[in-house]
Amino acid sequence: MRHTNNPSQPPRSGSQPSPRSGRWPTNPPPALPDGALRVFALGGIGEVGRNMTVFEYADRLLIVDCGVLFPEDQQPGVDLILPDFRPIESRLHEIDALVLTHGHEDHIGAVPFLLRLRPDLPVVGSRFTLALVAAKCREHRLDPKLREVKEGDKVSYGEFDCEFFAVNHSIPDALAVAIRTPAGVALHTGDIKLDQLPLDGRLTDLAGFSRLGDEGVDLFLVDSTNAEVPGFVISEREIGPVLDGVIARADQRVIVACFASHVHRVQQVLDVAVAHGRRVALVGRSMVRNMGIAADLGLLNVPPGLLINLDEAMGMPEDEVLFVSTGSQGEPLSALSRMARGEHRQIAIRPGDTVVLASSLIPGNENAVFNVVNGLVRLGAHVVHQGNAKVHVSGHAPAGELLFLYNAVRPSNVMPVHGEWRHLRANAALAVKTGVPADNVVIAEDGVVVDMVDGRAAITGRVEVGHVYVDGLSVGDVGESTLSDRLVLGEGGFIAITVVVDSATGRAVSPPTISGRGFSDDPKALDNVVSLVEMELSHTESEGITDTHRIAQSVRRVVGRWVADTYRRRPMIVPTVIPV
Amino acid sequence: MRHTNNPSQPPRSGSQPSPRSGRWPTNPPPALPDGALRVFALGGIGEVGRNMTVFEYADRLLIVDCGVLFPEDQQPGVDLILPDFRPIESRLHEIDALVLTHGHEDHIGAVPFLLRLRPDLPVVGSRFTLALVAAKCREHRLDPKLREVKEGDKVSYGEFDCEFFAVNHSIPDALAVAIRTPAGVALHTGDIKLDQLPLDGRLTDLAGFSRLGDEGVDLFLVDSTNAEVPGFVISEREIGPVLDGVIARADQRVIVACFASHVHRVQQVLDVAVAHGRRVALVGRSMVRNMGIAADLGLLNVPPGLLINLDEAMGMPEDEVLFVSTGSQGEPLSALSRMARGEHRQIAIRPGDTVVLASSLIPGNENAVFNVVNGLVRLGAHVVHQGNAKVHVSGHAPAGELLFLYNAVRPSNVMPVHGEWRHLRANAALAVKTGVPADNVVIAEDGVVVDMVDGRAAITGRVEVGHVYVDGLSVGDVGESTLSDRLVLGEGGFIAITVVVDSATGRAVSPPTISGRGFSDDPKALDNVVSLVEMELSHTESEGITDTHRIAQSVRRVVGRWVADTYRRRPMIVPTVIPV
Repeated sequence: MRHTNNPSQPPRSGSQPSPRSGRWPTNPPPALPDGALRVFALGGIGEVGRNMTVFEYADRLLIVDCGVLFPEDQQPGVDLILPDFRPIESRLHEIDALVLTHGHEDHIGAVPFLLRLRPDLPVVGSRFTLALVAAKCREHRLDPKLREVKEGDKVSYGEFDCEFFAVNHSIPDALAVAIRTPAGVALHTGDIKLDQLPLDGRLTDLAGFSRLGDEGVDLFLVDSTNAEVPGFVISEREIGPVLDGVIARADQRVIVACFASHVHRVQQVLDVAVAHGRRVALVGRSMVRNMGIAADLGLLNVPPGLLINLDEAMGMPEDEVLFVSTGSQGEPLSALSRMARGEHRQIAIRPGDTVVLASSLIPGNENAVFNVVNGLVRLGAHVVHQGNAKVHVSGHAPAGELLFLYNAVRPSNVMPVHGEWRHLRANAALAVKTGVPADNVVIAEDGVVVDMVDGRAAITGRVEVGHVYVDGLSVGDVGESTLSDRLVLGEGGFIAITVVVDSATGRAVSPPTISGRGFSDDPKALDNVVSLVEMELSHTESEGITDTHRIAQSVRRVVGRWVADTYRRRPMIVPTVIPV
Repeated sequence: MRHTNNPSQPPRSGSQPSPRSGRWPTNPPPALPDGALRVFALGGIGEVGRNMTVFEYADRLLIVDCGVLFPEDQQPGVDLILPDFRPIESRLHEIDALVLTHGHEDHIGAVPFLLRLRPDLPVVGSRFTLALVAAKCREHRLDPKLREVKEGDKVSYGEFDCEFFAVNHSIPDALAVAIRTPAGVALHTGDIKLDQLPLDGRLTDLAGFSRLGDEGVDLFLVDSTNAEVPGFVISEREIGPVLDGVIARADQRVIVACFASHVHRVQQVLDVAVAHGRRVALVGRSMVRNMGIAADLGLLNVPPGLLINLDEAMGMPEDEVLFVSTGSQGEPLSALSRMARGEHRQIAIRPGDTVVLASSLIPGNENAVFNVVNGLVRLGAHVVHQGNAKVHVSGHAPAGELLFLYNAVRPSNVMPVHGEWRHLRANAALAVKTGVPADNVVIAEDGVVVDMVDGRAAITGRVEVGHVYVDGLSVGDVGESTLSDRLVLGEGGFIAITVVVDSATGRAVSPPTISGRGFSDDPKALDNVVSLVEMELSHTESEGITDTHRIAQSVRRVVGRWVADTYRRRPMIVPTVIPV
């Protein structure tokens, strides 16, 4: 979603934005009244990714999460998209802490980029979350100030009294955070679901939320990802027997792909491997790293001798080995994609092998994932995925579970977070159904400022929040203009015309040089352009034009028109006029 | 799927390719024995789209379907992908007829391109199919020889005795075709499902298939699209009450988007509009055209006075109008996408409007469709789609219905068609379950040649089938090399370096000109390149190098290394060296 290209319309005068309206203010927010709490997102509302929410009270800031967003087709060549730090860039010294709800990339991926701006920022999170942050910071050669917390802890960061609650999600050790200020109590779920029989026995602390609800929650920020989905998520532990059935039937190699942070999914794969006398090789750098951390922290139970390395695995009988691999989203450079193309250095798929994609299918990745599936099937593999077996459950609460949350917390005001517009609005509708007045349900998006004054949340203005692109080593120098050029070049290539002219007379001193890339495979495609440009140059010369910029414009116009007429295409036309 | 980049491996010696094997021959097929039937696809097997199957008997050819494939991300700037005509290009005069099973673009879209090569080719199809072909040919200024047939007809085209059967699909007037030659009977389903209560009462002729099965079907070519999906498709007529419920609750404008060829879906929308006192405006060129044709042929029942034009609709009370629009796949230039961006010239979405996407979500289009949904939701619309209501059913038989087909036809040999590898293999497994011997189920892909000799189908070789791209007015000049350049340019842009050198000495006669597009928004990003190139030019000059190609190579190498070290990016480096 490129909302930065979708300028908001002015607010209707005197009206309170309601969940039915899509019109937001463009004005900067007013000064925050004494005793009021301000909330705005630098990413993550109106999109799924780069979550970062700023809480402001009495000129101090608390930040919840700092993640990355992965680019779409319209952002070619971009590696990552960061939250936009500009609205707080001059206020970095006012931040009391960065609180991380859990260790997924869309919640911690941008931490190193924020720490570069303020290296001494206290980073607060659970043990597993901070272990992942520490590993990430080592790669960036940063030494963050980590502050470990756990569920039940109450810790104050400046003006913000925080209380942490256990939350169940698709990664261990996730937390929700309640933020108390004199303006009231805000509760942020982070990413959440309500598995009532979680594999690690660590339930989402609905009892704690209820106690907080008794006290009174003034603003409830709620994960919207699955708000459109009716009902409940089945328990993660139901995946185990399905995997068991698949692996029981396999008499050759088995490869299971899943997210490298999904410790409980991997645990179930390991358990099934043990049950069927298979040893396990982990494939993929992040899989090896994260499972090492999880095992060290006691979150993953690995029987001694179960894990072997890839070389050892290649020497084992086919029915005594199982690979746990990354690449479940069809990433072209991943081990699984290489296997599907028959290009993996060690693992060659054979007819009768079994591959399990024990993972979600993130929207936008369908073609990549199905290309991998088709490649594996073509090589004769039996491929099991969530389309033909129950080998994945979501990590986010659908509508039925969200209703439990609303009814436990009984909030005065609600602000849906973590979702695209369709998710936010579905979540808002659920809040209203449980009795939250529609006017107290505030649908914001990135940059929209919500002030809670006298216990009432309302939109008061907007700060500018755009997309910040990381491409290679550089942050922010690739912007909309570069992306728009890339889209033109990617669609139609370019035709470059270079002419050398006498600077005094404007006369061409050599024939024009024409070259096209990404335009045509036909070597004769541009043969007519030379004479076309020569004619145009005689014309500009005869008019006494010596200005190289004007000559270039004439050349661009005549070549652009020719290519549109001849090919009905729109390559970029790149004239270069060199005076000598 | 770009199988052309995925060269097949040689056949295992002496082995019959079986559904478990993914290894195909690369040898050209042998001469076809007397009395044998040959079948190969120029598109549509191993992919969903550009269906085109060639039947050969006694040096004569019959072709079934001639459709287009829509490009994926890896084929930027491509408008359409055609079947590869090269294997029959020298044999066009041997074609007795082109039989079209139905009027979808992936079955008829490439007809004009084939007719350009052989304008007098007889084109056989049902009334509605041919009406759509005629409209398409008019746009291409072609006057095809159309031969109308209907279910029950038996017509001979040269050596091929054809019999046509009614088939139910998501477009009216679809046909299956049985092809009798002395080599045996082949039955091609086209696209098929088994709605037992079809809206038009025109059932898939399972009774006819059974009669043909009694006679004996030697080769059965079967739609694989939904072979992975268990069970049955609910009847198209169950959509009507769902639409009725949605529209009954609407008190403002209603916009329904669906495929422009889905006459029965539109019929149900019209019926509901009548029931709720709404008049209907059709939006989108293809919607207006196709529904006009359908109404003319009596396939769409339009009560007099129901349809109004867009201007009239804009003047109607909001609760008395309904729009039927194209754009259900998120096509960026469609009316619906414009509405979602707030850019439609006439229809401005208001909070409380209802939009229904009564359509499938074609894999690969998810982001585009959800961007449209989010845009509409953001503007306040209530959006109904197949994710939150039963407003779409598939047009292709899932596994349960395919079993009915196999059990009716009882074929000797089976060849799954119309699908990616995962679909083909799932379909093959169904055939085997119904008792077809596994060795008689032939999984081919585009170009793989299947010969039926003495009642037994087997793979005998391969003809070369690649992707043929249409970009603008030109066919085939954009190939893999151009696409690979576009992908590089789209990911990283380019840096162009132009230097003018004295042809005698190789000395630069002016400072190098550096320009980048799609590289960076920072105007200073390439400031260091000038001195870098100047240094390199002094170096080549001092080595006495005057060859412009060698100078260009040196410049490319030094700039490429600099940009990799400085930015870790890979733009295209485009040096131009002009001797004067």
